[in-house]
Amino acid sequence: MNALFHAGISGARGRMGRAVSQVLDARKDVVVAARFDRGELPDLSLCDVVIDFSTPKASVELAERCAQAGGPALVIGSTGLSPEEEARIEAAAEKVAIVRSGNFSLGVNILIGLVEHAAQRLDARDWDIEVLESHHRKKVDAPSGTALMLGEAAASGRNVELEDVRAAPRNGVGEPRAEGEIGFAALRAGGIVGEHTVLFASDDEVLTLSHSAIDRSLFAKGAVAAAAWVRNRRPGLYDMQDVLGFRQA
Amino acid sequence: MNALFHAGISGARGRMGRAVSQVLDARKDVVVAARFDRGELPDLSLCDVVIDFSTPKASVELAERCAQAGGPALVIGSTGLSPEEEARIEAAAEKVAIVRSGNFSLGVNILIGLVEHAAQRLDARDWDIEVLESHHRKKVDAPSGTALMLGEAAASGRNVELEDVRAAPRNGVGEPRAEGEIGFAALRAGGIVGEHTVLFASDDEVLTLSHSAIDRSLFAKGAVAAAAWVRNRRPGLYDMQDVLGFRQA
Amino acid sequence: MNALFHAGISGARGRMGRAVSQVLDARKDVVVAARFDRGELPDLSLCDVVIDFSTPKASVELAERCAQAGGPALVIGSTGLSPEEEARIEAAAEKVAIVRSGNFSLGVNILIGLVEHAAQRLDARDWDIEVLESHHRKKVDAPSGTALMLGEAAASGRNVELEDVRAAPRNGVGEPRAEGEIGFAALRAGGIVGEHTVLFASDDEVLTLSHSAIDRSLFAKGAVAAAAWVRNRRPGLYDMQDVLGFRQA
Amino acid sequence: MNALFHAGISGARGRMGRAVSQVLDARKDVVVAARFDRGELPDLSLCDVVIDFSTPKASVELAERCAQAGGPALVIGSTGLSPEEEARIEAAAEKVAIVRSGNFSLGVNILIGLVEHAAQRLDARDWDIEVLESHHRKKVDAPSGTALMLGEAAASGRNVELEDVRAAPRNGVGEPRAEGEIGFAALRAGGIVGEHTVLFASDDEVLTLSHSAIDRSLFAKGAVAAAAWVRNRRPGLYDMQDVLGFRQA
Repeated sequence: MNALFHAGISGARGRMGRAVSQVLDARKDVVVAARFDRGELPDLSLCDVVIDFSTPKASVELAERCAQAGGPALVIGSTGLSPEEEARIEAAAEKVAIVRSGNFSLGVNILIGLVEHAAQRLDARDWDIEVLESHHRKKVDAPSGTALMLGEAAASGRNVELEDVRAAPRNGVGEPRAEGEIGFAALRAGGIVGEHTVLFASDDEVLTLSHSAIDRSLFAKGAVAAAAWVRNRRPGLYDMQDVLGFRQA
Repeated sequence: MNALFHAGISGARGRMGRAVSQVLDARKDVVVAARFDRGELPDLSLCDVVIDFSTPKASVELAERCAQAGGPALVIGSTGLSPEEEARIEAAAEKVAIVRSGNFSLGVNILIGLVEHAAQRLDARDWDIEVLESHHRKKVDAPSGTALMLGEAAASGRNVELEDVRAAPRNGVGEPRAEGEIGFAALRAGGIVGEHTVLFASDDEVLTLSHSAIDRSLFAKGAVAAAAWVRNRRPGLYDMQDVLGFRQA
Repeated sequence: MNALFHAGISGARGRMGRAVSQVLDARKDVVVAARFDRGELPDLSLCDVVIDFSTPKASVELAERCAQAGGPALVIGSTGLSPEEEARIEAAAEKVAIVRSGNFSLGVNILIGLVEHAAQRLDARDWDIEVLESHHRKKVDAPSGTALMLGEAAASGRNVELEDVRAAPRNGVGEPRAEGEIGFAALRAGGIVGEHTVLFASDDEVLTLSHSAIDRSLFAKGAVAAAAWVRNRRPGLYDMQDVLGFRQA
Repeated sequence: MNALFHAGISGARGRMGRAVSQVLDARKDVVVAARFDRGELPDLSLCDVVIDFSTPKASVELAERCAQAGGPALVIGSTGLSPEEEARIEAAAEKVAIVRSGNFSLGVNILIGLVEHAAQRLDARDWDIEVLESHHRKKVDAPSGTALMLGEAAASGRNVELEDVRAAPRNGVGEPRAEGEIGFAALRAGGIVGEHTVLFASDDEVLTLSHSAIDRSLFAKGAVAAAAWVRNRRPGLYDMQDVLGFRQA
């Protein structure tokens, strides 16, 4: 992380773009060489990497432009892409290095890797897995997308599909817990920024892996870490598990 | 708790009766003067108090016998009484002191009192309440009876009825959390003895009140503490909140 | 909290003064009638209450001026007063209502009350008490002042002095835990805003009472709640336990 | 874990030996072919593996006897070996497969691996590490041996020695936390079986990895899992990290 590099910010006036800008400004090893928004056509020739939190349409156009020019590398945090837009990002990634993720928090992505490791090693005949998440009162979906990613990591560690083992919320009088199922629970209260816990329990012990967000700027910092990683990579579509070295050959 | 007293055990051969026996044997201030089960008619004249974990029918007969004889006092832990049986216990309590409870854990009953105190003082316009409980994989009902007691304590502190504010489990995409509602979540995994958490959260802070059971013998110990308390009381029907002084005039 | 009232802010340009200002501006039942700093002599005749986070010297002068004029009421959050300055505040409080506290968080002050309640009811022969606090890496004192307040509340509930039962940090090989002692532990890491936990444990169960700060603005909100409470009180020196009704006659 | 195997128990009448016996009796894939104690010379020719919780002297003798005979494999849980005794175990391991560990809990050993993984990936310039452990009131040493193992795993992930970065307990007024240091805190209360937490915190997020023991039988179960693993291994000295696959080539 020592060599100086030049970064661009796409979606610079948006909430995440401004957060990314603050993080970049605080680092001594980065020069911000371009800031732009939808409809603007900056000179990207000075950039080693562009961090993009914009819209699906703008992200696709940016990716294709970088693919044609042979660079710069990209970090894409836009969400809600259609399958066709996703396919165009994948095609662009044949010619330029792109990191794409729905969650740039380093801690959450570490947690995903740890959960998969633990699930591989803890026999489903002895160990039960439950995922708990807590968020502020305004969040309308449950479980959170990150809770589902954690459930998928646990299922992947056990070589099963999450949809085959996901338990309905526990409520009322029912059957005892089935072997291998993965349960989810959600709390909504006050201003909780975001907490995720994966619990592995056997008859005799409990292993608890948790992440708690203190401040929302962590997502911007994660995107910048991805940028520092991807700027020298070969073309390809990467995610935060690659950035963090959890998916080594 | 210093003066010596004489205790009887009703349902002595049952699981809870044996646990109560172990707890009494370990105390220096108690003599066990009678141990009996269904169909046995012991001499209770030596007992200051009888601890009863038997059946609804046996508990009612015991209560009525103590009421007629003017003693001894009773601690009743039997569950599943019909309304008619409950009424007969209440009638007996006009002539003899009886503590009745579904949960004799000192810690849980302290927690119930603390939750009501906190709910009284934390304005529902600012503070959200959620109840989380975790139990072993064989428990088939959710939320636990104790979680519901905690929810009732929270509702009582706010002068509302729990059924009017109880939220359905959070699952899928819905509305933001409504003001004043109380949510419940349940985890089932491994051999967790029993954990209950009541969470109060505002925009800026979280107050968390939790109880965790290490060992099931705690329920026997709570019943014995109730016995030491009730043996010199006036006739009346009491519960653990009385024993612990949370319901002082 | 419905009737309109007029508030002044002393130390208005300081960090806490600005935070108080933001909180007041967001409330519909308060008009800010004066903002001032050291050396300024505002007209306080329109104020029902003044919230003061300034310096010991400025706080004492303000208190004496309010005492002479018979109002307005005061909320004082300045810290580091000398015994002589404290005595002058006390004297002023004979003629005007003053709330003074080192911690205006509602949640922490609720927790203090709950800890005292629980400590009163949990026999020191059976139950051990430990206090754990976690703060950001820059905090240089340990345990935190709030942890000590919680320890004092626990000691008070047991009718002992904290200094008589406070345990040294557990490190190395020593004696088993002594009956009645209260232990403290401190963690320092990252940007943790502030977490406090009081743990009561017997052989069979654990009761855990915790507070976690999400955002530092909570201290300003607590001071405003104190202002709303004190503005109509009789002269006297109050603290947050009075405001929250934990110290009723 | 399906093929039937034959196990011996060394130190069979000791506390851990009896716990191991209970665990083996409950499994359908194991036949207990020998139970013995100090001074007894059983026929081990029927055993695939021997589980030994005895004394340093007895463990060394057993290891050397197995080395000479070319088997059976060994799981050694005896503690307190002198360097000379450790060297003799190592020498024996050149001819027979031996798993040796001070903690056979699967969960704790998983946790050790996860902590090392996380510490490798979380830059010490941004992330602070603290280790917290809680045990029953009778435990006289702090921090626990397992807490130190976790601290060593964290240090190892950062390529430093624990003794170079271990912080003294935080107490009184001192300096801010130094970069890279690893802090320890210990709670002692009631009957807590054993809880360990490793906390990684940056300015914006906290990753918490915890283990909680429900029941002491878990150590016996871990030793049996080690036995099932080691019985077909080549000669060598292994530990629980090998058994769990955390130390793959």
